[in-house]
Amino acid sequence: MSLAISIVSGGLDSVVMAHLLCEEGHALHLVSFDYGQRHVKELEYSRLCAKRLNAVHNVIDLRGVGAVLGGSALTDNSIEVPHGHYASPSMAITIVPNRNAIFLAVAYGVAVAQNAQLVATAVHAGDHFIYPDCRPDFISKFDEMQRVAVEGCGDPNLKLHAPFVQKTKSEIVKIGARLNVPFNETWSCYEGLEVHCGRCGTCVERREAFDLAGVLDPTEYSG
Amino acid sequence: MSLAISIVSGGLDSVVMAHLLCEEGHALHLVSFDYGQRHVKELEYSRLCAKRLNAVHNVIDLRGVGAVLGGSALTDNSIEVPHGHYASPSMAITIVPNRNAIFLAVAYGVAVAQNAQLVATAVHAGDHFIYPDCRPDFISKFDEMQRVAVEGCGDPNLKLHAPFVQKTKSEIVKIGARLNVPFNETWSCYEGLEVHCGRCGTCVERREAFDLAGVLDPTEYSG
Repeated sequence: MSLAISIVSGGLDSVVMAHLLCEEGHALHLVSFDYGQRHVKELEYSRLCAKRLNAVHNVIDLRGVGAVLGGSALTDNSIEVPHGHYASPSMAITIVPNRNAIFLAVAYGVAVAQNAQLVATAVHAGDHFIYPDCRPDFISKFDEMQRVAVEGCGDPNLKLHAPFVQKTKSEIVKIGARLNVPFNETWSCYEGLEVHCGRCGTCVERREAFDLAGVLDPTEYSG
Repeated sequence: MSLAISIVSGGLDSVVMAHLLCEEGHALHLVSFDYGQRHVKELEYSRLCAKRLNAVHNVIDLRGVGAVLGGSALTDNSIEVPHGHYASPSMAITIVPNRNAIFLAVAYGVAVAQNAQLVATAVHAGDHFIYPDCRPDFISKFDEMQRVAVEGCGDPNLKLHAPFVQKTKSEIVKIGARLNVPFNETWSCYEGLEVHCGRCGTCVERREAFDLAGVLDPTEYSG
């Protein structure tokens, strides 16, 4: 049984990925990051996911890092979260500089310490438009870099796994539906209110994904 | 004038690198990491370096990361720091899994946020034997990965700079002597006592470097 260090934010994509890895027979060790995001609501959902799947879970404090990476609407409360479609240019303000490389490098550290075989990330095709560190080329370059960086440490077959890198969010919703993922225990909204706002980029993307997948969306939206 | 985000531990190599970059005319922004190392003595020396060079300085709290990367003598107090030569197999216990990739990924985040042109690291040839993430191949693979990861963000010419990657520690000592670096304001020892222990791997390496360089070693050693 192989051990997968899986980055889980508590969002729809990463929670579906955790369920998928579990179904595929991997032992799971989830890592989540508190990087001073505007709200830590999604972290509650990562905890529910770990509990449901009986997985080890580390919530790693990276607030010291978030503090020096200012200027994103996702970490800086003085910047307004943009409304509109996820793939529109206005979403560039939601870029947290180098976030995925930082998260993945930490996850690889955990993977070496735990002798794991996989580091898993739920980046998906819909992210490619605005987040350079979600593209297939980034995934392959990161994997190559890590093979050199940890050579001789941990499992020699350790590799980066990005099962959704070529999948759309609606395909992820379909996979989640097949696996009976409780979608209401996932959080997408950039705002951290009681229920999903329904208007920010990631809410728009979430609604569209359920619609395109033909899967009933159990999410409660306020707008 | 280009801005260099420079990772400075407070050790001899990184402090000499900061002085070198300063002499070369770069604007300096130093980043140091508190990752739960056994002692934070070296961080005091990074602060002295920043003050001396009038550089911006962030000491970034990564203790949450260090806590999940257990099993190294550098972060785990229950593991004894090995004595002997730095390049001996017993020094493997001083590997902190994926440390340089983590530090560099964070430094790149700062570089994008600050529109910097360089990320600088003081890895050197003497590190190659035991730390896989100090080798030239790692540096080039990391640079390639980052070009993809932050494409379209920050300065398009941002690159990784490792001026000592082919230099021995004694060559670094010679460069430091030429630049009048106050070597007694650098810290190498893996132990965090009042003065350098003189016996741990990095003390042995430090003494040897001064000796080979033919430079007077101002360091006070207890043993």
